[in-house]
Amino acid sequence: MNLKPSPFAPATFPVLPTVKGLRAAAGSRGFYARRGIERDDVFLFAFDEGTNCAGVYTVSNTASADVRWCREALKAGAGKARALVAHSGNSNAFTGPKGVEKNEATLKAMTGTLGVARETCFLAATGVIGEPLKDPNFVGAFVPDLAARLGAPDWRACARAFMTTDTYPKASGRTVDLAGTPTAFAGIAKGSGMIMPNMATMLSYVFTDAAVAPDLLQGLLKDITDVTFNAITVDGDTSTSDTLMVFATGGTGAPAIESRDDERFRAFADALHATCLDLALQVVKDGEGASKFVTVKVEGADTERSAKNVACHIANSPLIKTAMAAGDANWGRVVMAVGKSLEPIVMEKLAIWFDDVQVARGGARAPDYDEAAASAVFAKPEFTIRVDLGYGEGASTVWTCDLTHGYVDINGAYRT
Amino acid sequence: MNLKPSPFAPATFPVLPTVKGLRAAAGSRGFYARRGIERDDVFLFAFDEGTNCAGVYTVSNTASADVRWCREALKAGAGKARALVAHSGNSNAFTGPKGVEKNEATLKAMTGTLGVARETCFLAATGVIGEPLKDPNFVGAFVPDLAARLGAPDWRACARAFMTTDTYPKASGRTVDLAGTPTAFAGIAKGSGMIMPNMATMLSYVFTDAAVAPDLLQGLLKDITDVTFNAITVDGDTSTSDTLMVFATGGTGAPAIESRDDERFRAFADALHATCLDLALQVVKDGEGASKFVTVKVEGADTERSAKNVACHIANSPLIKTAMAAGDANWGRVVMAVGKSLEPIVMEKLAIWFDDVQVARGGARAPDYDEAAASAVFAKPEFTIRVDLGYGEGASTVWTCDLTHGYVDINGAYRT
Repeated sequence: MNLKPSPFAPATFPVLPTVKGLRAAAGSRGFYARRGIERDDVFLFAFDEGTNCAGVYTVSNTASADVRWCREALKAGAGKARALVAHSGNSNAFTGPKGVEKNEATLKAMTGTLGVARETCFLAATGVIGEPLKDPNFVGAFVPDLAARLGAPDWRACARAFMTTDTYPKASGRTVDLAGTPTAFAGIAKGSGMIMPNMATMLSYVFTDAAVAPDLLQGLLKDITDVTFNAITVDGDTSTSDTLMVFATGGTGAPAIESRDDERFRAFADALHATCLDLALQVVKDGEGASKFVTVKVEGADTERSAKNVACHIANSPLIKTAMAAGDANWGRVVMAVGKSLEPIVMEKLAIWFDDVQVARGGARAPDYDEAAASAVFAKPEFTIRVDLGYGEGASTVWTCDLTHGYVDINGAYRT
Repeated sequence: MNLKPSPFAPATFPVLPTVKGLRAAAGSRGFYARRGIERDDVFLFAFDEGTNCAGVYTVSNTASADVRWCREALKAGAGKARALVAHSGNSNAFTGPKGVEKNEATLKAMTGTLGVARETCFLAATGVIGEPLKDPNFVGAFVPDLAARLGAPDWRACARAFMTTDTYPKASGRTVDLAGTPTAFAGIAKGSGMIMPNMATMLSYVFTDAAVAPDLLQGLLKDITDVTFNAITVDGDTSTSDTLMVFATGGTGAPAIESRDDERFRAFADALHATCLDLALQVVKDGEGASKFVTVKVEGADTERSAKNVACHIANSPLIKTAMAAGDANWGRVVMAVGKSLEPIVMEKLAIWFDDVQVARGGARAPDYDEAAASAVFAKPEFTIRVDLGYGEGASTVWTCDLTHGYVDINGAYRT
C-alpha cells in the first residue's frame, strides 16, 4: 500500500556527525521484491575493537529470536560489540527453531566474514510476525556483500532500510564537548505501529565515539529509556521485537568514562538523552495514521510511576484519541481515563488543562470554562493535555498521537 | 449524528415476561431536545415492599455521583429497593457539588411522591461526562409525572430511554420453573462505547419476581458479572457510570431463597446468568462501529485469571481489531498480544486457532498452515479466536468486536 507521509515528516533528513570507530553498509536482500517494491531492507555495522554497548529490549513474553539472541550476547560478551545486522520485511518472531537457525546462519556469516567473536554480534529483524524464512541463510548469505562495501555510514540509507510502515526515516545527531574532546552522537530509529510504553521500543540504535564502561552505559540507557522511548505510545500494542541499543566505540581516543562521578558523565548523559528523546518523538509523530501530536503531562501524583500510569491511560484511550482526531475537546473523556487508571484520585483536587486553557478544577468543569478556547486547542496539530492530581510531587510526561481513519486503513492492509 | 444500525441488531425486540411486584414508566425530559431529537430519555421503576436488590458498579476512581449514591444506598438500605430512576443525555459524572445537588433533588422527589425510604431509591445517568445540569431539579421535577403513569412496564420504551450511542434497545427475558413456581426474569441494558472488562458495566438492570436474600443475591451477581459483563470489551475504556443491578421483588409469593443450598438456587442462578450473558453480548454486538463479533477463548493457563488477562489483551488490541475489520487473518498479532500480556508463556506450547483452523503450534506457524482457510474465517461476521497456552487448566472466554472507521466517526462526533 502507498502510505501518505505523516504531516510531521521533517522537510529534510538531518545531517549527522561523523562517529569515529565504525563503518556501515546498507543494501537490498529483496524482502519487499515479492510485493514489487525495490528498496534497501538490511544494514550491517562493524565496530572497532574496544566498542562497548548497552541494550534494552521488549518485555514481551513472545519476544523474537533476535531479541533473545541479543540478550544472550549482551551477557556473554559483557557488553562488547563488533557487529550489528538489522533487516526489515520479516520480524523473525514466533518462527520456532527456524528463527534460531536463521540467526545461527547470520552469526556464522558475521563472525566468518569479519573475524569477530560471536557474542559481540547483534541482530534485529522487523516486519510481519510468524512468517518463517524459507532459507535460513537468506540474510547470512548477504553479509559478505555488505561487508565488502563497509565504509562511512550513509545514515539515510540505513534509517530507510529498517522502515516498515514508517513514512519517513528517523535520525538524530549532535556533537558535544566532553572535557575538550568533541564527541559525536548519531542515532536512527524505526517504528510507527505496535508502539506502547513499558518496554524498550521498536528498533533504535545510537552510536557515539565516546568510550564508556558497559555497566555504566547499561544503567544510564535504562534510565533514559524510561523517559524517552518508554514514554511514547501510538496504539498501546507492544512489539515482539523492540530493541534499543547504544554503541560507544571509543573512537575519539579519550579515556573511558567509568562512573557517574566523571566530570564528563552529565554532558554525555544529556547528549544521549537528547538523541533518544528526539528519535522517540519522531516515532510518535510518524504514528500510523497520525494527524495530531499530543503531549500528556500528569503532575501532583504520589510518585512518578503513578503519574506515568495516569498519563498512559490518557495517552492510550481510544475515546480520547478519536476525539483528538476530530478536534473535539471532550475533556470528560480525560476524567474517564484518569478514573480507570485506578490510581488514587481525589476528585475535588483534580484539575485539567488543554495547553493553557483550564477546563476542569475542584471536581467539576471549570466555572470559567470556555468551549471555544478548549476547541481551539484541540484544533491545533500539536498541543498538551495537562492533568494535576493535586496532592503529591510525582510527575511524568508521555507523548502520543491521535487515532484516525488512516490507522484503520493501514492496519487492515499491512500484511497484504 | 445518525448512527447506522449494527449489522447484529435483532429483527425484533424480544417479548419479555411479566415480572410481578413492579411498575414502570418512561418519558421524555427533553435532554436531547436541544439537538432537535425527540425521544424518551428517562424511566422510573417502583418496586413493591419486600423487594431485595444487589448491584455492582464501575471500579473507576472518577465514578459518577449516581454510582456513588447507589453504593451508599445499597449499604444503608441493606439491599432493600423501592424505586429506580435512570436517564440518558448527561452522565452526572465529574459534576462536583452540582451533581450531588441534582441527586438530592431527584431523591427528594422520589421519596415524596412514592412515600418510600431514601436509601431504597437508586439512580443512574449516562451521557456526556462533566457537563453540569443548569437546574438541579431538572430530573426530580419530572418524577411526579412519571409516577402518575406507573403501570406494567413498556420494556421497549424503557430500554430505548437510556440509550446513548446504542443503535438498538437491548433486552432479554425468560421464565423458569423454581420448584413449581413460574418465575420471571426481564433485563435491559445500554452500552456501545467506553466498554471494557474489569468493572461492572455500562447500565443494565435485571428484574425478577423471585424472592432472594440480599447477601446471597449480591454474591451471586458478582460471580455472574465476572463471566458476563466483565468479560466483554469494545474499546478498553472503562466508564464512570457502569452499573449493573438486579431487583428481586418476591412477587411470585414463593418463600425467599436464603442460601446456595436451596434446591431452587441453581435454576435461579442459571436464569440470572443467561439473562446477563445475553444482555452483555448484545452490548458487544452493538459496539460502536462494530462489523464483526468475535469470541476469544484462552485455555491451558495456570489460572482463570491469567487466561482472562491474555484474552483481554487479544480482545483489546487495536492491531488485532483493525485486522478483524479488514478480514485480514493476521495471526502474528495474536502472538504479539499474548506476549504483551506478560503472563507466563512457553512459546513451544502455544497453539492458536481461528474457529477450527489451526494457524500456530509448537512455537511457530502450523506446518499445515492454510492462509485461504484462515482468511475465510476472518471474512465471517462472527468467529472465534482460540489460544491454548498449553500448560495448565485455567480457561476464560471474552467477547469483543472489531475497530472500524465507524468507531472513529462516532467518537469524533459524539458530543456535537
